[in-house]
Amino acid sequence: MPHPLDRILNPRRLAVIGASSDPEKRGYRAIRTLLADHYKGEIVPINPKASEILGLKCYPSIEAVPGEVDLALVCTPAKAAPEVIEACGRKGVKGALLLAGGFSEASEAGRLLEERTVEIARRHGVRLIGPNTNGIFTAREACNAIAWFDIPRGPAAMLANSANVMLSILAEAQFHQYFGFNTLLSVGNQSDIQFHEYLSAMGDDPDTGAVISYIEGFKDGRAFIEAARSVTPKKPIVMFKAGRTADGVRAARSHSGSLAGDYTVATGVLKQAGITLLDRSDCLYPVAEALHLLPPMRSRRVAVLSEGGGVITVAAEALSERGLVLAPLSEATQARIHEIVPNASAISNPVDAGGGTDPRAEYYGLCGAAILADPNVDALMLTGFFGGYARRYGDGVAEMEFKVARDLADLMRSHGKPVVVQSHYAHYRTPALDVLRKAGVPFYRHIEIAAQCLASAADYSEAKRRMAAASAAPSSTSPMAAAPGLPDAAAKVIAGARAAGRSALLETEARALLAACGVPLAPACLLRGADDAAAAIAALGDGPLALKVVSPDVLHKSDAGGVRLGVQGEAAVRAAVEGIMAAVGQAVPGARIEGVLAAPMAARGVELIVGVSQDPQFGPVLLFGVGGIFVEAVRDVVFRALPVSRADALEMIGDIRAQKMLDGVRGLPALDRAVLADLLVQVARVEQAAGAAGTGIAEIDLNPVIATGDGLVIADARMILA
Amino acid sequence: MPHPLDRILNPRRLAVIGASSDPEKRGYRAIRTLLADHYKGEIVPINPKASEILGLKCYPSIEAVPGEVDLALVCTPAKAAPEVIEACGRKGVKGALLLAGGFSEASEAGRLLEERTVEIARRHGVRLIGPNTNGIFTAREACNAIAWFDIPRGPAAMLANSANVMLSILAEAQFHQYFGFNTLLSVGNQSDIQFHEYLSAMGDDPDTGAVISYIEGFKDGRAFIEAARSVTPKKPIVMFKAGRTADGVRAARSHSGSLAGDYTVATGVLKQAGITLLDRSDCLYPVAEALHLLPPMRSRRVAVLSEGGGVITVAAEALSERGLVLAPLSEATQARIHEIVPNASAISNPVDAGGGTDPRAEYYGLCGAAILADPNVDALMLTGFFGGYARRYGDGVAEMEFKVARDLADLMRSHGKPVVVQSHYAHYRTPALDVLRKAGVPFYRHIEIAAQCLASAADYSEAKRRMAAASAAPSSTSPMAAAPGLPDAAAKVIAGARAAGRSALLETEARALLAACGVPLAPACLLRGADDAAAAIAALGDGPLALKVVSPDVLHKSDAGGVRLGVQGEAAVRAAVEGIMAAVGQAVPGARIEGVLAAPMAARGVELIVGVSQDPQFGPVLLFGVGGIFVEAVRDVVFRALPVSRADALEMIGDIRAQKMLDGVRGLPALDRAVLADLLVQVARVEQAAGAAGTGIAEIDLNPVIATGDGLVIADARMILA
Repeated sequence: MPHPLDRILNPRRLAVIGASSDPEKRGYRAIRTLLADHYKGEIVPINPKASEILGLKCYPSIEAVPGEVDLALVCTPAKAAPEVIEACGRKGVKGALLLAGGFSEASEAGRLLEERTVEIARRHGVRLIGPNTNGIFTAREACNAIAWFDIPRGPAAMLANSANVMLSILAEAQFHQYFGFNTLLSVGNQSDIQFHEYLSAMGDDPDTGAVISYIEGFKDGRAFIEAARSVTPKKPIVMFKAGRTADGVRAARSHSGSLAGDYTVATGVLKQAGITLLDRSDCLYPVAEALHLLPPMRSRRVAVLSEGGGVITVAAEALSERGLVLAPLSEATQARIHEIVPNASAISNPVDAGGGTDPRAEYYGLCGAAILADPNVDALMLTGFFGGYARRYGDGVAEMEFKVARDLADLMRSHGKPVVVQSHYAHYRTPALDVLRKAGVPFYRHIEIAAQCLASAADYSEAKRRMAAASAAPSSTSPMAAAPGLPDAAAKVIAGARAAGRSALLETEARALLAACGVPLAPACLLRGADDAAAAIAALGDGPLALKVVSPDVLHKSDAGGVRLGVQGEAAVRAAVEGIMAAVGQAVPGARIEGVLAAPMAARGVELIVGVSQDPQFGPVLLFGVGGIFVEAVRDVVFRALPVSRADALEMIGDIRAQKMLDGVRGLPALDRAVLADLLVQVARVEQAAGAAGTGIAEIDLNPVIATGDGLVIADARMILA
Repeated sequence: MPHPLDRILNPRRLAVIGASSDPEKRGYRAIRTLLADHYKGEIVPINPKASEILGLKCYPSIEAVPGEVDLALVCTPAKAAPEVIEACGRKGVKGALLLAGGFSEASEAGRLLEERTVEIARRHGVRLIGPNTNGIFTAREACNAIAWFDIPRGPAAMLANSANVMLSILAEAQFHQYFGFNTLLSVGNQSDIQFHEYLSAMGDDPDTGAVISYIEGFKDGRAFIEAARSVTPKKPIVMFKAGRTADGVRAARSHSGSLAGDYTVATGVLKQAGITLLDRSDCLYPVAEALHLLPPMRSRRVAVLSEGGGVITVAAEALSERGLVLAPLSEATQARIHEIVPNASAISNPVDAGGGTDPRAEYYGLCGAAILADPNVDALMLTGFFGGYARRYGDGVAEMEFKVARDLADLMRSHGKPVVVQSHYAHYRTPALDVLRKAGVPFYRHIEIAAQCLASAADYSEAKRRMAAASAAPSSTSPMAAAPGLPDAAAKVIAGARAAGRSALLETEARALLAACGVPLAPACLLRGADDAAAAIAALGDGPLALKVVSPDVLHKSDAGGVRLGVQGEAAVRAAVEGIMAAVGQAVPGARIEGVLAAPMAARGVELIVGVSQDPQFGPVLLFGVGGIFVEAVRDVVFRALPVSRADALEMIGDIRAQKMLDGVRGLPALDRAVLADLLVQVARVEQAAGAAGTGIAEIDLNPVIATGDGLVIADARMILA
């Protein structure tokens, strides 16, 4: 079954509406471009005033065309769109590409025009590309409807919110020559077909080996990640996304009207879907090429090989900074390298096979073979002269350099381990580099780009393994299956709050709801007044207590004098409860006070935050990070879209910057990541269960969750109903 | 007065020791290279067995050469070095370049050989370059003693710990064509002449406009930053330094034997000296070129101009992420842009002058002129097509593109504001880009590199202003003059501790020393026993107190049970003091307990750290950052070498990541940066005064310094004597 958009994106019969014989007109240039690029299908010009354009028979209207039409390339101005699409609908055209601007991106009138056009298209089942787009190029039928030339052909598909960014990548491909395009798609206003549908078509297209995307904002982020989840196990999606800074958010809104959304949320959610998100536009093209060419990486251990120092230091750091590991080579490998180059300056890892004699290309081949055979190595990065031997030392060494290039590619394939080459001579695309690349090994001018390619390869391989494991997991452990519904006790809490007209749960209610859902909580008890002090101490022990006011009218408990910490002994507790009541009464006159919640002070520990919120683009997301009062200032948090698998949860824990804090600081033991992952999954399930029960929770905020030596203590719990 | 190394680095008479007629020998190739690159001076081959080599008269020994010799290029093997240098010394040769390896980098025997050679050289006043170096190239006399060809000439000087890294930069320059070299210098083992001396020679060389450096580690970091301080006001030093990661430290040690040192320390100290430290090797060359070409930037406000969306979003984010500001354009500028391109998609900043019509190069010129005249703009970044108009739209637009290129350069100069161009066509070095670059405006292929160049230009301009202000400051406010000596009371504290045989000061002593030096401290008092509780409360007020044991035998007070926080009321204080004494006595049997220090609990606040330590490369350094118990885990700290100016201190405060924490979080007011800067300068002066008084302090550690709503509270003070 071909993808529903397949024939629209790869039309065999294409009508040009607004075809023209005037070389200045878009309706002329569109046909010229299709002809110049040897469109394989049939072009049908539509113009009521002409019988022939550029040698092609012209029809007065789309309805007058006999037979099927896959795509109408609409070159007429914006205002004609409703009428044109109406005619396409009557004719049964599958899709229409609206080039004109002047729609929702331009004005309110344009927005209404776009809305009307879409409504007509939907009524007739005509799918719309654009409007306000530079068009598309697809290679299968050589359909160049984008008016750019010299497009190198190849396995890449590009999907962009901006033709200009796409053009920049195209210029890169034109210079590079090796990694060309099967599809170039400038989405325009996405009035009908959106990112996720294009993505899914690219996923299904057997000619597409990698997707490069530039996205300013999603109209439907959840649909996109769902589409991505079915694509990334088969082929990489490399993405550069706007919204990392306030300036970027503003520029994206002014450019494409996109709401870029929270970038931290997008980072986690896109990673979860197996997407390779990059934070530099100059990495987009090389990383896509690398992920397409390289075999999967088993883990993150890279070996560096050079014929000189300095660059091995630069390479070691660039790899290490990107989360790769330079594991020592086995003794056997070291012995073998020593045998090959007795004077080698460094033989463990990184390897510097320079030995005081003139550089020799064969060292790369022989040492490379030894290194790739080492079980401690998952990938190899060559850095330095390779590719420039013949250029530097004359044609006498060319044959050897070619042989090494072929050998490296063979080694990569036979060992199933990625090999990348950084060459000082990459800009010159020397004959040796040409041999190397044609044999499947990518090369780069700079070490940082080569390192990023390997890091992304490792990340993508990990993501594929994680996703494969999740889909192979028995349904009982799959997060979707594990949200059967809300326990009665929990549902009762929600019903109670709703009946009281409250969406913000009291802390006592939040605790009750979590407990009903099986989330482990430390003991606590509610004191209705100072007289309950003795009972509380009897229940909670005589250690120091934390006391917090419980009131539907007090949002910021500390600010209202509603919190006392470390209160010990009956007298002190009595006094504190009275003090809290008085302070809150004064700060929030008329506040209804349910009582004071007492809990044992948590031991010293690392303060974390666990929560759920609703993202405008991606829906419900789970949050995890560094908690406490500085959560906003530190902003070391990560997100995943629900449902969240246990592997997702473990990855979240590994993704925050403050790893050292989790590994035990100042006498605290290392945190038990498995227990924390359980909590994350449980909190996500509470959200899902409530959603499934139709009694949604908008927000869960457990902050701080204190990781003490004895385990996790949820020290504060807030929840807001949908 | 020429620099002492000037004639050695630019020799007019050069002897080749170990000259040879055998084309396989280094002593032949060295002469060939000098001749091939048209060395302007005189070559004197030395070989006892030949009378003529390559047409040049040969002498049997260096001493047989009549007249002065500036440099001996030593091509003989390592073992001959002592004898050769001895002969050079007798002859009065100014300098010798030892090419051979086999010295300290190779073995212990080599190390001794190197030591002996240096000793001989010092005795005779012969300066040594190397050994274990690829040599040097200097342009003034066309002295190519490095055996590389096609070196583009220009204003750059490169100083490197690695010939390979230098070769990579050279390959970049060869491709780029525009920014060539006046000096290439591979330092080798730095047995005699070190980085700082080469750097100072480059600083004095009028032909050098910018220094590019790759450094694995300093032998004498303090001498380097002192040399750098006299160079950076005149010309930029761009640096890539090893040591950011453990792998990098290891690789550097294995490659050049360098101790890379603490990278965070280096970051702050090098910045303080006006050096442009970069963390990607691929930025080194373009940033050096930019700093050489661009006029100083007044502040950090950049405008972006394009003829299309997407790229303006990417540019806005890349700039913003690097600390640059996209300030809105003035209304007059916006009106002018609207006049030029009525349909412009965005006219504020970033500016998208694409307006639905075909792109036109003149928009860049006209809008660029309007933008650069705007007082809200300090620099302009063009992004997109420029440089590719003629390539895309035909030669008809070439003249206009040339004109715009020239206009942009004129605008840059007349406004004194940097202009950089990101062009999709940069790799093709089109004629328009050639015109642009020859007129002084740099261009780049990628937005991130262009953004980095502007960010570095802004940083370098700021550093130059800071350094100029510091050197113009009256001596009373200069940090050097402000360390007259140690007050008597402080000296007495140190003498007392020394007399007691202690290098670690008690907290009471540390507080006394700081107080004597004028550092403001919150009140505290020492309780000799529980009976002092009432007196302490009388002195400190009846609020909650922090109690800490004072003992020369207890290093980790908390771990020994020596700390109690929030103790209130006489009974509680009595009990706590007794409890502390008992706990410490148990934890550290026989500990001498001076008493318990009581201080009022600091109000809630941001915990900071201020300290001084001794860096192995840079000597005494001041540290500032996020404090508290997670200081190691968070590691958000910055350093400066002493002496520290007030401007340095303010920059330190601005350099930590957790800026939001300083700006007031959760109800805390913003921290007073001026007051904190005063504290930093004072702490640095304590260190200097102690040093000047000959009673050095090895380490000062104020952690935490709590920034409360009412000011700074030094909650803990540790000091260790040298």
